[in-house]
Amino acid sequence: MSGLIYEQKHRIKYYECDATKKISVPMLLNIMLYVSGKQGKLLNVGDDVVTQPQSYNKFFTYREFKVYDEAGELCVTTHCTFAMMDFNKRKMVRIVDELVAPYEVEATKKLVRTPKPEIVDQEAAKTIDYRVRYLDIDANQHVNNAKYLDWFLDSLGLEFIKNHELKSINVKYEKEVSYGNWVQCEVSQKVQEDGRILTAHQINNDGIPSCEASMTWLPL
Amino acid sequence: MSGLIYEQKHRIKYYECDATKKISVPMLLNIMLYVSGKQGKLLNVGDDVVTQPQSYNKFFTYREFKVYDEAGELCVTTHCTFAMMDFNKRKMVRIVDELVAPYEVEATKKLVRTPKPEIVDQEAAKTIDYRVRYLDIDANQHVNNAKYLDWFLDSLGLEFIKNHELKSINVKYEKEVSYGNWVQCEVSQKVQEDGRILTAHQINNDGIPSCEASMTWLPL
Repeated sequence: MSGLIYEQKHRIKYYECDATKKISVPMLLNIMLYVSGKQGKLLNVGDDVVTQPQSYNKFFTYREFKVYDEAGELCVTTHCTFAMMDFNKRKMVRIVDELVAPYEVEATKKLVRTPKPEIVDQEAAKTIDYRVRYLDIDANQHVNNAKYLDWFLDSLGLEFIKNHELKSINVKYEKEVSYGNWVQCEVSQKVQEDGRILTAHQINNDGIPSCEASMTWLPL
Repeated sequence: MSGLIYEQKHRIKYYECDATKKISVPMLLNIMLYVSGKQGKLLNVGDDVVTQPQSYNKFFTYREFKVYDEAGELCVTTHCTFAMMDFNKRKMVRIVDELVAPYEVEATKKLVRTPKPEIVDQEAAKTIDYRVRYLDIDANQHVNNAKYLDWFLDSLGLEFIKNHELKSINVKYEKEVSYGNWVQCEVSQKVQEDGRILTAHQINNDGIPSCEASMTWLPL
C-alpha cells in the first residue's frame, strides 16, 4: 500500500538550467529531495530523514516522484530507494518505525528488486579525474548525491548533451566521498539495437566504487 | 533618484547550502539575479535584461540588493553594476532606454565609481587550475557569473571557510569564459590591521584576466 501523496508546484529558474536551457538533472534531483523533505516537515518527522510513500522494510524505504509540466503532461517518473545512516558512525542502520508511521505507509518484508546500472565497458572507457571541491560537500559532510550526476554528465561533454535527449537514468550510490578526495569517473558509450545510446558510468575513489550509473539517450 | 523597489521572500533550501549549513555565496548571487529578473518580467521587459532601480547611464545600470533574515535584520547589501551585451557579437552595447524606462529610474551622465578589488600578491599566491565543465555553462553559452565564486571559494579550501566568516566581497567581471577552457585561479591572503583576513583572487584564461575579486573574513 502506498502512503500519503504530497505535491508542490515549482517554477524553473534560469540558474537551475544548463546550456540547453533545460533544468539540469542534478537540480531536478535536488528539488525532488527537497519536496520529499517538505513532506517530512509537514508530518513533523523533520527533513533530515527522507522517507517515502511507497513501502518500507527493515533497511530501506521506497518513494516515487512524478514530475508534470504546465500542461499536466507527465515528464519524469523516479523510483528511489533510501537507507538510513548513523551520522557519526557513517553506517546504515535499521529504519526507525516512528519516523515512517506518519506517512501511513505499510511495512513489508519484501525487498524491492531494482535493476542494476549497466556496467562500464572497460575496453571502450575513458576516465576523467575530479577533485572534490568545497561546494560539492553538503551539510552531511560528504559529496552531495546530485554532484555525482554533475560528474557523470560532464564526462559526456557538452556537445553530446546538446545532441541527445536523456530518456532514463539508473543510479546506484555505494559509498560516500569526502572533501579533498580525487575520484576517477569512467564512462563508456554504445549504440543499442533500438538506436538509443547507452552510457555507462562509474565513480571510483581510491580504487573502490562509490557510485554507478547508466543512462539512455535519444539522438536529436 | 532610485527606481521601483521589488521584494521577494525566499526560503533557504538544503541544496542551496554548503558544508557549513549556510547558503552558499554563489547561490545567493543566483537568487538575487533571479529576483531582479522577476522584476523585469513584472515590468514586461523580459528577464533576459537585468536592469536596476538605482540609476543608469549610457553603458551601465546600477542595482542594489538587500537581504533580510526572518527577524527583519539586514544580512547582506549588494551593489551591482550591469552592462548590456550583444548576444551574437559578444560585445557591450549602449543601454536601451525603453528597457530601463519601466523601472522609473533616472538617466544620469555620472559614472558610479566602484572600488577595484584588491590585487593578488604574486609572491604569496597559489594557483589552482579549473577546467570549465558542462554545468558551469549557462544559457548564455558562457561560464555563469556565480561559478567564478565557486572557484574563488574552493581555492580557499573548506577548512578556511569553516573557520572564518565572510564579511565582504568585491567582484569584477572582465571577460567571458567558454566551455572546455582551462582557467588559472590565483589566490593570496593577508592579515589586515583590524585582524580581518583579506583574500585576493584572479581568474586568468589563456593569460588574460577574466575576473578579479577580493574578500574580507573574520576569524571565528
